[in-house]
Amino acid sequence: MNSPDFDKLRIVLVETSHPGNIGAAARAMKNMGLSRLVLVNPKPKAWPAREALSMAASALDVLDRVQVVATLEEAIADCHLVLGTSARLRHMPVQLLEPVEAATHMAQGCRQQQQVALVFGREDRGLSNEELHLCHYHVHIPVNPDYPSLNLAAAVMVLGYEVRKALLAAAPAAPAEAAGVEGRAEARTGEWDQLPATAAELERYLEHLEQVLVQLEFLDPGNPRQLMRRLRRLYQRIQPDRMEINILRGILSATQDSLARKERQ
Amino acid sequence: MNSPDFDKLRIVLVETSHPGNIGAAARAMKNMGLSRLVLVNPKPKAWPAREALSMAASALDVLDRVQVVATLEEAIADCHLVLGTSARLRHMPVQLLEPVEAATHMAQGCRQQQQVALVFGREDRGLSNEELHLCHYHVHIPVNPDYPSLNLAAAVMVLGYEVRKALLAAAPAAPAEAAGVEGRAEARTGEWDQLPATAAELERYLEHLEQVLVQLEFLDPGNPRQLMRRLRRLYQRIQPDRMEINILRGILSATQDSLARKERQ
Repeated sequence: MNSPDFDKLRIVLVETSHPGNIGAAARAMKNMGLSRLVLVNPKPKAWPAREALSMAASALDVLDRVQVVATLEEAIADCHLVLGTSARLRHMPVQLLEPVEAATHMAQGCRQQQQVALVFGREDRGLSNEELHLCHYHVHIPVNPDYPSLNLAAAVMVLGYEVRKALLAAAPAAPAEAAGVEGRAEARTGEWDQLPATAAELERYLEHLEQVLVQLEFLDPGNPRQLMRRLRRLYQRIQPDRMEINILRGILSATQDSLARKERQ
Repeated sequence: MNSPDFDKLRIVLVETSHPGNIGAAARAMKNMGLSRLVLVNPKPKAWPAREALSMAASALDVLDRVQVVATLEEAIADCHLVLGTSARLRHMPVQLLEPVEAATHMAQGCRQQQQVALVFGREDRGLSNEELHLCHYHVHIPVNPDYPSLNLAAAVMVLGYEVRKALLAAAPAAPAEAAGVEGRAEARTGEWDQLPATAAELERYLEHLEQVLVQLEFLDPGNPRQLMRRLRRLYQRIQPDRMEINILRGILSATQDSLARKERQ
């Protein structure tokens, strides 16, 4: 389903402590179409662990393919581009990117068939300065400064989401994607009655409305004030489609019919 | 730290089943500077519950301020703009937005001092069609079509992240703050009737409309088909302001008066 570019990106988790975070990260990855997970020296109770599997929900295939290595150097040895997540400004930042910029870099690398790594640090202390120095760029998720502590899976989610957007924006439409776009195009233009009403159709509606409002004595033709102008603005803003204009005009006709019927009684 | 605009947005969770998801959603909210959480009819084991507190980590203040209500209508009664999250395309979508577009709408509403709600459905079944019909817009997080099942807190995280970006992008820079606040104060107190109608006001209009359509025999209560649903979609899209709602209701009352007068004649 996903473009093969997605497989160029690996998610690297360094010295994770909690198995649930590994599982939840795997789930977030799969939501975003990512499948390559590398664990650097996970804590013994974090991996392997049943809790990782249960938190992964249906993303067990990501955990099946997981790679476990001893050091960050090993995890990124064959990578062309490495980004490290950083919770705060360090005194010597390489370059601090916003998630959108980081995603653009990563997607570009993937498209150029580079191996790309996105590295997340420990739950409590993030990445060490030495580890950050191994990265080409640092990426920072802008959070509430009063509460910047992001759950690991939440950080994977946000960056995975941005990189997915960037990869899809760059990719030629995959079959599934094309279907989605088609679906939407159809909703927009497929059926004649879902086309927006033309200016003339709207005009005829407003004339009809004015006529009914006079019949109802809601509008005094001798003293119209701003009423029709306001209603025009309202219905212009709504941009009714043809089916909707037909319904609205139907209501006006029903009002006139009812009045005429009562008249005759 | 955050602009007061952040307080205009409430996160609404409908019939959540798992306490951990409420806690994790609160944490994600606080990460993104959001603090107003409304729970609609949470499952008894989900709230109140110790697990919600433990998953909230340091976001207990969000849970302290939580509001619990029985129905979605109550949760959004005073809202001017309501967005509902939708996992998939429905056969009659209101309008399906990408997260960035949705965030732009929400930030704009907050800046204009509107009350804004972002609504998330049940873990297993999302929002019902009836609930989606109460929303002005639907927002969809583009996920891997092979694994679209998003954890609730992950969805809160992604949309909270986008709305935070939009709110911060929109916030006037410090020096311009004075002018901004002044301008805003004017928007707030200037013309009451130009505020968008709240969900409750729109609801009363739609009830009145339905009543008149039955009187006109335009709507057959025994066979209502899609009519009211279509009219609801139309008027939600329009986001009428209070003056407009008053005009529209005035027309309905005039119709009823006219019918009654003819009756008497």
